[in-house]
Amino acid sequence: MAGSYRAPLGDLEFVLRQVMPTKQLLALPAFSHVDRNIVSSVLEQAARLSEEVLAPANFEGDTTGCHIDDGHVTLPNGFHEAWIRFVADGWVGLDLPQAYGGQGLPRLVQAAFAEMANGACVAFCMLPLMCRAAARLLHEHAPSDIVARFVPKLTAGEWGATICISEPQAGSDVGRIQTRAQPADDGTYRVSGTKIWISYGDHALTPQIAHLVLARTPGAPPGTRGLSLFLVPKKRLAFDGSPTEANGVSAVSIEDKMGLKASPTCVMEFDGALGYRIGPEGRGLRCMFTMVNTMRLEVAIQGHALGGAATARAIDYANERRQGGSPDEQPVPIIEHPDVQRMLLTMRARTEGARALALEAALQLDLAEHAAEEPQRIDAAVLAEWLLPICKAYGTDTGFEVANLAVQVFGGYGYVTDTGVEQYVRDLRVSAIYEGTNGIQALDLVTRRLLNDGGERLGLFLGRIRADIDRHGDDKRLDEIRGGLTDAVESLERCSRALLQTAPEPQPAAAAATPYLRLAGLVGHGWMWLRMAAAAAGRSPLHRQKRLTARFFARQLLPEALTHEAQVLAAAAEREAPDLDALGAY
Amino acid sequence: MAGSYRAPLGDLEFVLRQVMPTKQLLALPAFSHVDRNIVSSVLEQAARLSEEVLAPANFEGDTTGCHIDDGHVTLPNGFHEAWIRFVADGWVGLDLPQAYGGQGLPRLVQAAFAEMANGACVAFCMLPLMCRAAARLLHEHAPSDIVARFVPKLTAGEWGATICISEPQAGSDVGRIQTRAQPADDGTYRVSGTKIWISYGDHALTPQIAHLVLARTPGAPPGTRGLSLFLVPKKRLAFDGSPTEANGVSAVSIEDKMGLKASPTCVMEFDGALGYRIGPEGRGLRCMFTMVNTMRLEVAIQGHALGGAATARAIDYANERRQGGSPDEQPVPIIEHPDVQRMLLTMRARTEGARALALEAALQLDLAEHAAEEPQRIDAAVLAEWLLPICKAYGTDTGFEVANLAVQVFGGYGYVTDTGVEQYVRDLRVSAIYEGTNGIQALDLVTRRLLNDGGERLGLFLGRIRADIDRHGDDKRLDEIRGGLTDAVESLERCSRALLQTAPEPQPAAAAATPYLRLAGLVGHGWMWLRMAAAAAGRSPLHRQKRLTARFFARQLLPEALTHEAQVLAAAAEREAPDLDALGAY
Repeated sequence: MAGSYRAPLGDLEFVLRQVMPTKQLLALPAFSHVDRNIVSSVLEQAARLSEEVLAPANFEGDTTGCHIDDGHVTLPNGFHEAWIRFVADGWVGLDLPQAYGGQGLPRLVQAAFAEMANGACVAFCMLPLMCRAAARLLHEHAPSDIVARFVPKLTAGEWGATICISEPQAGSDVGRIQTRAQPADDGTYRVSGTKIWISYGDHALTPQIAHLVLARTPGAPPGTRGLSLFLVPKKRLAFDGSPTEANGVSAVSIEDKMGLKASPTCVMEFDGALGYRIGPEGRGLRCMFTMVNTMRLEVAIQGHALGGAATARAIDYANERRQGGSPDEQPVPIIEHPDVQRMLLTMRARTEGARALALEAALQLDLAEHAAEEPQRIDAAVLAEWLLPICKAYGTDTGFEVANLAVQVFGGYGYVTDTGVEQYVRDLRVSAIYEGTNGIQALDLVTRRLLNDGGERLGLFLGRIRADIDRHGDDKRLDEIRGGLTDAVESLERCSRALLQTAPEPQPAAAAATPYLRLAGLVGHGWMWLRMAAAAAGRSPLHRQKRLTARFFARQLLPEALTHEAQVLAAAAEREAPDLDALGAY
Repeated sequence: MAGSYRAPLGDLEFVLRQVMPTKQLLALPAFSHVDRNIVSSVLEQAARLSEEVLAPANFEGDTTGCHIDDGHVTLPNGFHEAWIRFVADGWVGLDLPQAYGGQGLPRLVQAAFAEMANGACVAFCMLPLMCRAAARLLHEHAPSDIVARFVPKLTAGEWGATICISEPQAGSDVGRIQTRAQPADDGTYRVSGTKIWISYGDHALTPQIAHLVLARTPGAPPGTRGLSLFLVPKKRLAFDGSPTEANGVSAVSIEDKMGLKASPTCVMEFDGALGYRIGPEGRGLRCMFTMVNTMRLEVAIQGHALGGAATARAIDYANERRQGGSPDEQPVPIIEHPDVQRMLLTMRARTEGARALALEAALQLDLAEHAAEEPQRIDAAVLAEWLLPICKAYGTDTGFEVANLAVQVFGGYGYVTDTGVEQYVRDLRVSAIYEGTNGIQALDLVTRRLLNDGGERLGLFLGRIRADIDRHGDDKRLDEIRGGLTDAVESLERCSRALLQTAPEPQPAAAAATPYLRLAGLVGHGWMWLRMAAAAAGRSPLHRQKRLTARFFARQLLPEALTHEAQVLAAAAEREAPDLDALGAY
């Protein structure tokens, strides 16, 4: 039924305990306060929170949506209760520094928690995501008095936060931002302008909201180099830091959206609001990049979180719903029909590949910060940078495909609102758009990650995969996935070489970016399936499921590499832009 | 803006005048009352109706939805006015026999009209679709007094109709239908049972509704062989045929759905309702098949109709919306970005391939009925049978992909309800489910169309394509599309042979059915693109667009054949069902 959620605890434990080097990670000094039992206990509590507190709020949230009245946004009822519990249990600061009241757990564990929480109620999770991203950003770039006043509150979930980038004329093109920040005599600024697509721009869950706003100081150059970052609190601060009177920031409207209806998407008006500059003038975008990793990883997680939730529902339904078979006998559960099996196996293969790859990215973010030696930290940072646009775009695209397959498994019942399955499709549709559209992610991968360094980052990625292929070279049971993955890796190499040869022409690489990212994503999932299949050597149903799904992935999904490669090579060979007059002719 | 629709008149005229043998069709005796000018004038009027009457009702219909009160369904306001105009202009009977008041135009022309009407407001078009399907069915199978009373009313749109097949326990598995029909002394029946997913099961647009109901007579055998067809009017008929008192049929509830909100989907209760048997006992499903062609073709058309509407919106937006380019200059229209071009070209290629293939199927249905010689009629019927499951499943899958790409082109604005683009995604999602899920279509193609006759139908399809490849063998400009299509045809042949070799094992063919249908669909679109590119030899923007899109199709979309073939061959080689316990393990 709608509102039900089954946390994939067994699957998550499998990846964390048997596929990822979690033990080695926890042995690092930064995690001396954490051990495997603590991790397991956290995950169990997260599963309970997700199933018992967040999931029940999800369907109601979609039905009720948000409302705005005179600048005040009202959230669905269940969200208040859920937030109290969420904050009381300290979930916001799970992976934030202990110095500010966080629990200092690895991002790897946070990512496993985030899958369950988002799978249960993605609209709710947008708020703690903003708190975490803001806390990390301020921790890194804000002066110490701002850090002291804001970061503990954000870490605790006592105050909310937003990220204010887009404006009506500046979406993907952030360099066109027009919001102005006028310096005042006391070193603060007065911020004025309109921001759009602001998640949780207003609500009554917290008495204070920290808006992180990109704006332009007087005389700043055009483009992104003229952008600075400001912290604009909803309420001005009293001497003791507590919120007092209103600060010239207000939500003027909220969007009526396809999905994610319980997460208010606000148009925010800043009218001479007091703001504190964070970081140097003209370095606003660079400061914002601090949280890009956090945001991209979380949006990537939304993909397999909702995909996984939809998959669990579809598997249950396929076991219960009976149709077909001989008319003289009882109908058979639809899971017995090969085309339903094809859909369910596709769903599992995509979801679990995306999950493992996102957890790998989280692990690399942990290592980038906490690994013992500097070369390890640098490699981890580079690998994380390579993986994150892939996880974000490929994870949300495949998650959306999976959610749609769930609707298909449910048939007519999937199209009906009450079942709660079509909500996954609607909620997830935006994940390919926000936090940088998936097209922007692909461009980012090809231009900033591949072409800019002549393929060095790619080399690191492929080196890790090859090492794993070699490591399992003798295992006959892995022949299919290993062989398929080897082919796909070679395909990615050919495509990379072709793109490197197109530089510095911008058109071919840009035209090839999306199929290139998809090929890289497929290779990434293949890498994870090799490791999962290798780890699943036992007789338990879970291990048999991993081997079955790895085989399906190798036989039915890895061949997508053939199409992606042909697309990349054809686009790379195309030196001219298409005839735009003709493109739009009717 | 939401509610705007631009009819693709130029594109439709191009296909009808330059790609299809419309001239030869109109030369047949059955169409002696039609000429090219009449066809053009009908299409122009259809465009006006769609743009001015239907499109404005579309967005309001989505917002308002339907309501039910004490068994009476209320439709959105705009629908009443639109229906009056639709009926007055005779659109319901466009392709129905003149003997009953229809206009007797070819289905080919009806299919072009249906694209515009559905593209403007698909929820509205569900009602005339039911009228047409019911009129055709009754015309073919009902006794003459029933025909005389019902068919002219349905053809005129004075009465509504429904098709009542599904029950809670009988969805795809129609053999499980339990609705009972008890014979009365006067040769009529008393029908009792519950039917679900009944489009327009109740409304106030017409004073009478003809429900066509599959039910089981006493002692009938289990399965589909025990099903008979009944006509159950909403109101009993007076001696003169006019509707009188209620007839024990009522809508008990309507579904809250993801989309298509203005088309009421009813649960219908039949409680001893008077029914007339149509056709012999036990032949109900066979009678129903008469309208399957009409229904499948129309649902196929929904795919490219909404896809095409979304494409036109996306092209306009991409020309207007400016983002990117040098920060010192004006931003450029986003159509200048290669990834946006990729999306728009994909949208055009899919939409126009699907449109032309659906029109080809409509042409074959015309020829099956009206061609001069019997062998031509038989070939046409066979080809139509082959094409229809492909058009239905591949057309709706690709249409859904296109609608989603439109949202992506719009970015954040695409996710917002007001823009009206996300509605295409929601409205279209059901088209892969109703009228036989796309999985069922694929099974139908593989088992009934391919395996049952050892590949004869396939031979006809491929023969036509090869003839066109040969016909254009000397045209250098067509090298790319011809070469790609030739490869894809060979791929389809290899896959067909592999499936034919798996018979009579049911598992491999069923597991391979979906990728096989997709490959056949891709080949079908390629066939159309070859013909469109060949016809577009001029310098007009429209002709240049066709050549540009054909080239893109050949380079970027035809390579999907590589993946489909690998999937089919891998599935065909798999002789065992997967381990179901493992599939569902967590």
